[in-house]
Amino acid sequence: MKKISTTKISLFVILILALVALGACGGGAPTPSSDLGEDASAIADARGLTPDDVTAALKTYIPTGQHDEYIMFSSGGHSGQLAVIGMPSMRLLKLVGVFTPEPWQGWGYGASEIMEVLDAGNVNGKQVRWGDTHHPALSETAGDYDGQFVFINDKANARVAVIDLHDFETKQILKNPIAVNDHGGTMVTPNTDWVIEGGQYAAPLGWEYASLDDYADKYRGMVTFWKFDREQGRLNYEQSFAMELPPYWQDLCDAGKLVSEGWVFCNSFNTEMATGGVEKGNQAFEAGVSQRDMDYLHIINLDKAVEVAASGNTIEVNGFKVITIETSIAEGLLYFAPEPKSPHGVDVAPKGDYLVISGKLDPHVTVYSFEKIQAAISKGGFETDDYGIPILGFDDIVEVQIEIGLGPLHTQFDDKGYAYTSLFLDSAVARWSMGGAYADLNPEPDWTPVSKVPVHYNVGHIAAAEGDTVSPDGKYLVSLNKWAVDRFQNVGPLLPQNFQLVDIGATGDTLKVLYDMPIGFGEPHYAQIIKADKLQPWEIYPEVGWNPHTNSVDEFAVAQGEEKIVRDGNNVEVFMTAVRSHFTPEHVEIQKGDHVVWHITNVERTYDATHGFALPGYNINLSIEPGESITFEFDADQDGVFSYYCSEFCSALHLEMVGYLLIAP
Amino acid sequence: MKKISTTKISLFVILILALVALGACGGGAPTPSSDLGEDASAIADARGLTPDDVTAALKTYIPTGQHDEYIMFSSGGHSGQLAVIGMPSMRLLKLVGVFTPEPWQGWGYGASEIMEVLDAGNVNGKQVRWGDTHHPALSETAGDYDGQFVFINDKANARVAVIDLHDFETKQILKNPIAVNDHGGTMVTPNTDWVIEGGQYAAPLGWEYASLDDYADKYRGMVTFWKFDREQGRLNYEQSFAMELPPYWQDLCDAGKLVSEGWVFCNSFNTEMATGGVEKGNQAFEAGVSQRDMDYLHIINLDKAVEVAASGNTIEVNGFKVITIETSIAEGLLYFAPEPKSPHGVDVAPKGDYLVISGKLDPHVTVYSFEKIQAAISKGGFETDDYGIPILGFDDIVEVQIEIGLGPLHTQFDDKGYAYTSLFLDSAVARWSMGGAYADLNPEPDWTPVSKVPVHYNVGHIAAAEGDTVSPDGKYLVSLNKWAVDRFQNVGPLLPQNFQLVDIGATGDTLKVLYDMPIGFGEPHYAQIIKADKLQPWEIYPEVGWNPHTNSVDEFAVAQGEEKIVRDGNNVEVFMTAVRSHFTPEHVEIQKGDHVVWHITNVERTYDATHGFALPGYNINLSIEPGESITFEFDADQDGVFSYYCSEFCSALHLEMVGYLLIAP
Repeated sequence: MKKISTTKISLFVILILALVALGACGGGAPTPSSDLGEDASAIADARGLTPDDVTAALKTYIPTGQHDEYIMFSSGGHSGQLAVIGMPSMRLLKLVGVFTPEPWQGWGYGASEIMEVLDAGNVNGKQVRWGDTHHPALSETAGDYDGQFVFINDKANARVAVIDLHDFETKQILKNPIAVNDHGGTMVTPNTDWVIEGGQYAAPLGWEYASLDDYADKYRGMVTFWKFDREQGRLNYEQSFAMELPPYWQDLCDAGKLVSEGWVFCNSFNTEMATGGVEKGNQAFEAGVSQRDMDYLHIINLDKAVEVAASGNTIEVNGFKVITIETSIAEGLLYFAPEPKSPHGVDVAPKGDYLVISGKLDPHVTVYSFEKIQAAISKGGFETDDYGIPILGFDDIVEVQIEIGLGPLHTQFDDKGYAYTSLFLDSAVARWSMGGAYADLNPEPDWTPVSKVPVHYNVGHIAAAEGDTVSPDGKYLVSLNKWAVDRFQNVGPLLPQNFQLVDIGATGDTLKVLYDMPIGFGEPHYAQIIKADKLQPWEIYPEVGWNPHTNSVDEFAVAQGEEKIVRDGNNVEVFMTAVRSHFTPEHVEIQKGDHVVWHITNVERTYDATHGFALPGYNINLSIEPGESITFEFDADQDGVFSYYCSEFCSALHLEMVGYLLIAP
Repeated sequence: MKKISTTKISLFVILILALVALGACGGGAPTPSSDLGEDASAIADARGLTPDDVTAALKTYIPTGQHDEYIMFSSGGHSGQLAVIGMPSMRLLKLVGVFTPEPWQGWGYGASEIMEVLDAGNVNGKQVRWGDTHHPALSETAGDYDGQFVFINDKANARVAVIDLHDFETKQILKNPIAVNDHGGTMVTPNTDWVIEGGQYAAPLGWEYASLDDYADKYRGMVTFWKFDREQGRLNYEQSFAMELPPYWQDLCDAGKLVSEGWVFCNSFNTEMATGGVEKGNQAFEAGVSQRDMDYLHIINLDKAVEVAASGNTIEVNGFKVITIETSIAEGLLYFAPEPKSPHGVDVAPKGDYLVISGKLDPHVTVYSFEKIQAAISKGGFETDDYGIPILGFDDIVEVQIEIGLGPLHTQFDDKGYAYTSLFLDSAVARWSMGGAYADLNPEPDWTPVSKVPVHYNVGHIAAAEGDTVSPDGKYLVSLNKWAVDRFQNVGPLLPQNFQLVDIGATGDTLKVLYDMPIGFGEPHYAQIIKADKLQPWEIYPEVGWNPHTNSVDEFAVAQGEEKIVRDGNNVEVFMTAVRSHFTPEHVEIQKGDHVVWHITNVERTYDATHGFALPGYNINLSIEPGESITFEFDADQDGVFSYYCSEFCSALHLEMVGYLLIAP
């Protein structure tokens, strides 16, 4: 959209009036523009809004009761959670508890099945109750988001989680059995058969100890392929496997699609195998890992690796199947290709035909041709790295390099044959045109920088609407900016991030920032954006007594009229219902020393009629949605009078929804 | 604002053109309205925005880099946190960790001083790591918010917290030593000398056990007055005290101001002393507590109570000073007044002259005159309740009752002599005119309903800009709606709340909803709204090595060049610095079985240059803001190789900000 100044408009008006005066007097009135309300201009004036601001306001405002067109699933970074955000309004619809307990949604505050999910993520038997969520991946069918599940990784502790989009609840957390931490996850293959978890900082596999002096011999990288069982909605541990990799620090991965389906690509840095130790006079990591001009793109034949893993040609590390480097070489599962140093991410183009990589210390994006990669593999005659892994020739497989700016990190795609690359150091997002099968979708010459839009500030990842699918939507892109600095009212030395919504709807030099969304609840790393109408969540649970973790009516579900308290020695079992606005029973009388198992069924069938259950002093809070049945248990190790109550404001008589737990000494 | 239809505008345009044609041809062009951009109308058309929508969009949009005019501090409900929200944009600027650990801000994931704050909130020695935050209270000077501190309570476990607005960090959590849970907190007196924490569900004081058969004798209500030391920024436990109250369920409180300064008002429900037990054939609580037409407004002479507490005329419960009911009666500290049953909140008018109470099962608001209350107290000759507490005559002290609608809950005030009352059952906010000293501020007759605006849905509290001060601002009001139902894209059976921003800028029947903000991270109960320019938070900590919990340079702060690792037997002490983009040292080599004390100073002086510190497997994540020094400690009880890294994306070389903790077996 071009700006037209007030003066130009005035001239235009004068011109029209002049035409009217010059003979058109008495002619038909021009059709007025749509009704903006009598004081729109006055408000814009009073608030100092520019025409661009007005455009942005009108493009992002969602009137009450209308819904956003897109939903963004964003990692929460080291909050350990997942954020659900409406677009274009950029409103936070939900923070989903994943690795970190969160009491509003009753995540990790007593409910037995939830405690089991969290405990499955324990690390060497230790409760680890946070995560560094990095890359959410929506489940896909034929390369398109299908709105059923979302996966996410915990970089800090090498874990992956499965969130079911029927109820936006985390159903599974798995600890990677061989790695300390991860980074290149999660990504999915085009039909969600496999969830990818790539490594990061090398360490001995299986949490073993080894001196840094033995780095080359004993430290290793890895990539793990988790088998997803869509029917069960769970990752299948037994059918999953990992590949041992050299102790380069693997970074992001992406799955091939369409022509490249069955292949997986991961990049890496620190192929120098620097081990730091600045305090000993060694090069600091930041310098040591940046010495060589090239690192290695890892090209993995996943289809073949699956066969090898199934054939049993693996070793076991902590009971988990691992394909060794030797086997990968012998079976042709793994190839390397030089890539400009220290890239952050490899991004597969919508048709699966190109891979885009940006060395973050190089002002270019480098585009690799999958066809050329296949030709190079077929041709053979490779050099190898120190571990014997074949290296393809850079010139044999690169399609083009395009200079786009400083600190390029991550690339997304649209429906108009453009790619977008974030520029951390330039604080900008660059649009560039693609060639090949994308050439006719926009007017620009092939493989050419088109425009840049400044963002505020220091963008990491970017996310385009349906941007990781085989058919990106265009229209919107979000710039996930790491620093906010002056963008928002100061709220203390820890600042929010800044998500900026960018209009990418038109071709050419037309990128515009529409909205700044402060992120004051985490440090999101990546996001995926889905068309909202693909999501079909439940409004209430399908049946009364539903257990969201078995997806069936719970054996301990309580029907109204069947509430009771059963004692067996020191074991007390409570069967309770919740409905607006009372719990039944209202008195639970037990003895100090009892072990209590407590079942509550919310018998409501009304949308939004959630009940909470708060128990003072015992660190228990539940969120029981309509139809849900929950069990929790505890040892009554302190006596006294404890008023349990509904912690959701459920009705006008919500404060009266209370009962007494009496624990006699 | 009136709507003008397109037709009317067309006629207007025709009229103008007709005038032009009829002789004014060639005259001066009319001045166009302010420039809204060439395609504003087209966008509005395409998006189906009504003129009211356009107005709302333009009134709430904040262009990039500009700041919000107001900041709302909202409780997070059973998330246990505090939300900081910009207005009018309704963007979430920060979720402040209070009762619940939150790893993005490093709240409760290792940092020793933070663990101490959380542990001070343990309940009978048990870690309780969530809260049900209800009522935030901004610190006040002379009855106006001063932007220095905010207080908040945990209803579930009867705790209060102090958040310092220099760095928006929680500095203190205190467990109420006599109560199981609370509700009527926090509120502050006009100079923040006292922070009020009122009770809720009666129980034996001091967490004792007693049968419900002994309810009238052994169960008690309470109100606690926490002495605030503004210099230290902490509540002073020793100077604080509580008042024993009958086992009516005390609800919200408010402090007197100006003419009523020195007095405190709390209301109550369940003066029936119903004890529930629906499963035994008793009346359920929801019915049992609603039998009488009247409950009791508690009128407390705080100034006098302070004197009594200081004089030592108290008992001790769990080592905490408590004024008995007997003493309160004897000293004239406590009076009751009938109030329509089961009210939610007593709200003191800006001049301190009236109290507004709404029985939630009564369609009226009831306005009490403080002058009349004083006259009634002076007059004497009281009836008493069963506990001997004097009851003032309803007719003697009520100024007026106004019928406003169904389910009235909470009242706020503006600068135009209006009060606003939320109507839970009507799903509306009512504006009504006040009389007395406020009568001339608006054109309406005194004490009259003026208008209602529908809200979506089921509003609990409302918050007006500076609405609890002696000089409310008007302009904006937020309706804290408990149910969202269809307002937002469905994100599963647990729905967000809905904060609706209401324009209250003009007099008369002009209330308009401007914006819907989904709250998908908690269940806020109450909020206060401050003019943003009253806040003066730090951008970075004042000096390098700053300890935010002592507000001084820490004795273990580490300067660059002075990093070291010191061993003393099995005790290892690490002195580390963090700067873009490396930790020094990068290797920490210890033995299994060591106890490790680890100090990290972020030596940055750049705004927004926060570093995180993540340690896999040990449940540790820190957020170290520029200048901050943090200590954490742990037992190295598992061996292996642990890559610690910066969990904030601090620079282009952020991924390289890493080191190895090697724990030899």
